[in-house]
Amino acid sequence: MNYNQLANLIKEKKTFLCVGLDTDTSLIPKHLLKYEDPIFEFNKLVIDATKDICVAYKPNIAFYESHGIQGWQALEKTIKYLNETTDCFTIADAKRGDIGNTSNMYAKAFFEWLNFDSVTVAPYMGKDSVTPFLEHKDKWVILLGLTSNAGSADFQFLQSKDGKKLYEQVIGKAQQWGTHEQLMFVIGATHPEYIAEVRKLAPDNFFLVPGVGAQGGDLESVCREGKNANGGLLINSTRQVIYASKDTDFDVKAREQALELNDVMRKFID
Amino acid sequence: MNYNQLANLIKEKKTFLCVGLDTDTSLIPKHLLKYEDPIFEFNKLVIDATKDICVAYKPNIAFYESHGIQGWQALEKTIKYLNETTDCFTIADAKRGDIGNTSNMYAKAFFEWLNFDSVTVAPYMGKDSVTPFLEHKDKWVILLGLTSNAGSADFQFLQSKDGKKLYEQVIGKAQQWGTHEQLMFVIGATHPEYIAEVRKLAPDNFFLVPGVGAQGGDLESVCREGKNANGGLLINSTRQVIYASKDTDFDVKAREQALELNDVMRKFID
Repeated sequence: MNYNQLANLIKEKKTFLCVGLDTDTSLIPKHLLKYEDPIFEFNKLVIDATKDICVAYKPNIAFYESHGIQGWQALEKTIKYLNETTDCFTIADAKRGDIGNTSNMYAKAFFEWLNFDSVTVAPYMGKDSVTPFLEHKDKWVILLGLTSNAGSADFQFLQSKDGKKLYEQVIGKAQQWGTHEQLMFVIGATHPEYIAEVRKLAPDNFFLVPGVGAQGGDLESVCREGKNANGGLLINSTRQVIYASKDTDFDVKAREQALELNDVMRKFID
Repeated sequence: MNYNQLANLIKEKKTFLCVGLDTDTSLIPKHLLKYEDPIFEFNKLVIDATKDICVAYKPNIAFYESHGIQGWQALEKTIKYLNETTDCFTIADAKRGDIGNTSNMYAKAFFEWLNFDSVTVAPYMGKDSVTPFLEHKDKWVILLGLTSNAGSADFQFLQSKDGKKLYEQVIGKAQQWGTHEQLMFVIGATHPEYIAEVRKLAPDNFFLVPGVGAQGGDLESVCREGKNANGGLLINSTRQVIYASKDTDFDVKAREQALELNDVMRKFID
């Protein structure tokens, strides 16, 4: 999916919502465990219940990988189902990144084998760990900028001699590696006071914003400070949506929660 | 494997050698492609030819992941074979790292499903992205410190107001999260001038050193500057060893190359 298609999708559906598929077999409704593939069964029902009211899905790769081959098969089925039955943007939340020839292999895995639109990438190893992903047409890198977790304070705010914090250096430098049509940044909702500043540093890039809800981020401030003329936001919600109920009505409740989030976001989309 | 076992292995075998298993089907001898699982077949022969003259193996996960389910099955067979037929330390070169609940899932994948001794982790997301891996007994985190690639210059050398470079901050802070019996650092051989300095910052930790050979690092300087009283080094060689020949004698040639490397390293091990 390209930049204009994504911007249009947001305008048409009047939402920035990205549904996180961190599917944890210890948290999904018990009745699903009798299925041959409970993870895919759960995802399928969540997707069916939300695909017309969100613009993106973000499977968290760790949750699949932890189940071994079976987990990877569930992921394979999930991305196939997403590509075949929805118009949504897809994010492999994998936080990969390595030297050039290795990043190339990761790009092959997520863009060719699994056919995701985008993959999250960690910036520590610099340019050659990122650029191999950018050589794939209409595919995206979503680079960690300012993350939503407590550990973001350990290194991301380190200020260098020129006064710039590490996450600002990352956001500044990465824009020399790729255009806003292929590069997004992860900016956690738990740092609303910084979102406006980051928007100035990267006016045209999309931000993937995790951390609304369970992690404490405030949705209204994120929308207000983060949006740009083309939308510019993918706001992720996982637990609030997919674990809204632990019962057989989990998909109905997931939809209700997604609609509630959309009620807030709609006001910020023309 | 614990710290003493690893230190003893190095003393007994008189080598720091770690063989990288970045098994690329476009580079392995052509006659292997007729096998049902060429990647595992190649790995098996490399392992058989080198297991008595190295102390560690490091499969690079991207090279397996890029082949989809089949690639993961080849990795599964490879780590099983390593655990069953060798006494070597095993490294999942995966460069994972995410918020706590997600790092937990990655730890489950690499320490429980695959039963590796260690996994490489990227530090950008800070403490809670690292500590879940440290809760597994006799398992190790190998944290990126100063990497061997060109992109290491982009952020790792950024100097903060207190004069410390980012990689120094990482090495300093991470030692508060785990002991030298569960935490190693990646220090690239392409920065030999820094290895002695890093050794002062982390006197007891093991360093995993990639970048000798193909990437230009000098083996003698790495040994001289990097070793400590317990060995303290795992020096990785991939291309020089596993791609020493593209013919049917590739395993014999791999052994020859490993022995040449050992001739240099032996001098630095008492």
